[in-house]
Amino acid sequence: MKYQMYDLIEKKKRSEALTKDEIEYLISGYTKGEIPDYQMSAFLMAVCFNGMTDEETYEFTMAMEHSGDELDLSSIPGMKIDKHSTGGVGDKTTLVLAPLIASLGVPVAKMSGRGLGHTGGTIDKLEAFPGFQTGISEETFLSNVKEHHIAVAGQTKNLAPADKKIYALRDITATVNSIPLIASSIMSKKLASGADGICLDVKVGSGAFMKDLEEAKKLASTMVDIGRRANRKMVAVLTNMDEPLGFAVGNTLEVMEAIDSLKGNGPKDFMELIYALGTEMLLLADEDLTSEKAKELLKDAISSGKAYDTFKTFIEIQGGNPSDVDHIEDLLDASFVVKVPAEFEGYVKEIQAEEVGRASMILGGGRATKEDVIDMSVGVVLHKKVGDTVKKEDAIATIYGNNKESVDLAMEKIKDAYTFSKEAVTPKPMILEIIK
Amino acid sequence: MKYQMYDLIEKKKRSEALTKDEIEYLISGYTKGEIPDYQMSAFLMAVCFNGMTDEETYEFTMAMEHSGDELDLSSIPGMKIDKHSTGGVGDKTTLVLAPLIASLGVPVAKMSGRGLGHTGGTIDKLEAFPGFQTGISEETFLSNVKEHHIAVAGQTKNLAPADKKIYALRDITATVNSIPLIASSIMSKKLASGADGICLDVKVGSGAFMKDLEEAKKLASTMVDIGRRANRKMVAVLTNMDEPLGFAVGNTLEVMEAIDSLKGNGPKDFMELIYALGTEMLLLADEDLTSEKAKELLKDAISSGKAYDTFKTFIEIQGGNPSDVDHIEDLLDASFVVKVPAEFEGYVKEIQAEEVGRASMILGGGRATKEDVIDMSVGVVLHKKVGDTVKKEDAIATIYGNNKESVDLAMEKIKDAYTFSKEAVTPKPMILEIIK
Repeated sequence: MKYQMYDLIEKKKRSEALTKDEIEYLISGYTKGEIPDYQMSAFLMAVCFNGMTDEETYEFTMAMEHSGDELDLSSIPGMKIDKHSTGGVGDKTTLVLAPLIASLGVPVAKMSGRGLGHTGGTIDKLEAFPGFQTGISEETFLSNVKEHHIAVAGQTKNLAPADKKIYALRDITATVNSIPLIASSIMSKKLASGADGICLDVKVGSGAFMKDLEEAKKLASTMVDIGRRANRKMVAVLTNMDEPLGFAVGNTLEVMEAIDSLKGNGPKDFMELIYALGTEMLLLADEDLTSEKAKELLKDAISSGKAYDTFKTFIEIQGGNPSDVDHIEDLLDASFVVKVPAEFEGYVKEIQAEEVGRASMILGGGRATKEDVIDMSVGVVLHKKVGDTVKKEDAIATIYGNNKESVDLAMEKIKDAYTFSKEAVTPKPMILEIIK
Repeated sequence: MKYQMYDLIEKKKRSEALTKDEIEYLISGYTKGEIPDYQMSAFLMAVCFNGMTDEETYEFTMAMEHSGDELDLSSIPGMKIDKHSTGGVGDKTTLVLAPLIASLGVPVAKMSGRGLGHTGGTIDKLEAFPGFQTGISEETFLSNVKEHHIAVAGQTKNLAPADKKIYALRDITATVNSIPLIASSIMSKKLASGADGICLDVKVGSGAFMKDLEEAKKLASTMVDIGRRANRKMVAVLTNMDEPLGFAVGNTLEVMEAIDSLKGNGPKDFMELIYALGTEMLLLADEDLTSEKAKELLKDAISSGKAYDTFKTFIEIQGGNPSDVDHIEDLLDASFVVKVPAEFEGYVKEIQAEEVGRASMILGGGRATKEDVIDMSVGVVLHKKVGDTVKKEDAIATIYGNNKESVDLAMEKIKDAYTFSKEAVTPKPMILEIIK
């Protein structure tokens, strides 16, 4: 063997930087099973304490990217744009952004994951449409992007397998929480997905993985740096995730809200996010565009129905029925629809996003383990958001469930999620910072 | 399960102290194989960075001590005294101290290890005597201590098995170097060996594991604190290990030097160490003694031949032939006895102990792996120590070997080990500090 894993652990423990060769040995040795888990976990813990330099983080990402299949989008003309969100409750952004950007002629080629825990995945939400295929072939994926500027597919098994194996180990050894490790994990998959420009939505707040703005900024800068070194156009938008995004949490409920948004009736906070991310994605695709012009194009695409039509086309070319888009409410099939009464008068001070997410999980809308089957119809629709006034007779939310017991439990969770105040409350801005 | 290992790793990563219950779960779960290596190694790496409190270190030690057999010495009257050295080159201290202390009526019940790497173990050295048994039964061990105040046995397989398993993992995951982990590893075995008083010889210097005095003091204090909490009388002596101890390095050669020392002809530095450690051991056994009186007793035991006689008895009751002690030089059987010429005039400035130890290993006097067989007759006898004057015609050392090639290699190592100076050199004091 070229190196001894022991020496590489020792080196990182002493806070020295590993070379490109050493990192390649480490990643390929671990992926092939030549380096045992117990040495890798000791190494990862040393990284949690001593970090990695920008150069190391980049090489770590590249080695993971190259560990499996890489999508070649070069046959598609134009700047292919991807987006990635670090995950939040009620995040149906891709469902709106992908058709919106595609309707303006920018090719959107997106690999997406499934949800685990209380944040749902885009792939799961799209399966609300009967017949919709996320496991399309590479050929179909490429031809759809070429012809219709849009394709969203589930990640293939062999996309960055090194990351998959390392993430699974981090998940059980308390070594998830490290900026270079998080950044390289996300970016290895994004780079392997082949887009020319990547827009990162980094969520910050009580409902996000990153609770602290400074930490989130570091994560965003690290990812932007990795992408730049790999010759991709990069932007990261830091966005608020103290309360759930929009009103709807749950699979079909979120698809309904996404369709409303494409029709021009989206929630205020959600549309602010859509326009901010959409603007940055258009700027990645066309350097000569101004932010003002980009936002105008986005608004036109919605008001003219172009974005909505693209969404219907998208559903159709991936096997769904476009008329389901027009009648999405017919797909919602919940036995219990129960309002959550207000127990306070005044203003909504806080809505703990994680609690709302857990309520949706309890109802059957999320997965605790990879094998769990999701109930598409269940979830929660909030009626009051931070800053809203509440009267005793108001309902603060509606619960959609298929089981009485889980509805009762979800009701308690939703009540617990809300905090009220006698004084007026000003919600935090949605867009906290843009890192280019 | 009572706890989740994940949570304990996370806790240590956040630098919080684990409770007694948590530590007991961790040690017993790992020893039983319920906690996997990859979680334990991540935990150990977190300890390397965040340390452990004195309370945690004590509980960690106790849990490892209780993981296997514990020797019960309570049937032996008096304060049973043990000693432990952190290991150095030419360290034949136990061979002299055990019979010396025993000859004064203090019961010495010692469990000893085998050597690995360039420092030899006491057990290996004693096997220079044909017939000598280190694997004696607990019954023989106890009755020998009762009747003759002395027994030295190899560690049983089931002494602190948790420490054995954890140490093996630390050794391959770069997590050896942590004061609470080193201290708890040593003390778990010492406490399980059952002595009432423990004298620790903590070696410091270029030839020792601890290179730095401050670090060595921390290690010594941590071990003394653990022993006190476990109701043992404790003392730690910090001693210099910049150059090899005494003149002889190698198994039979060291036994010869030990016998010379028991006869009153020991090397100056070595006897200084013997008197210092011996004094502390006698003080552990009898609080009313003064240091001066203790040293006098030790000197008398040597000059009267009492210590030498006890050594002969000791060899006899463990299966050896006492007349071999009188004619130990007959057991030395080396085909090559080669002098190392001085290549410089002046003063010896430094002798790198590790290099001398490696020379002995090259000759076949040590083990690279646990399975290696040791050649008892080979080794090195130094003729010049730090501070000594050297003339061109002098030999600085003599090499004992059974293979021409290894003798040549050892010759180079010995030459490299020495540094000379034109100016007079004052050697460092042997006793650096005593921690009670």
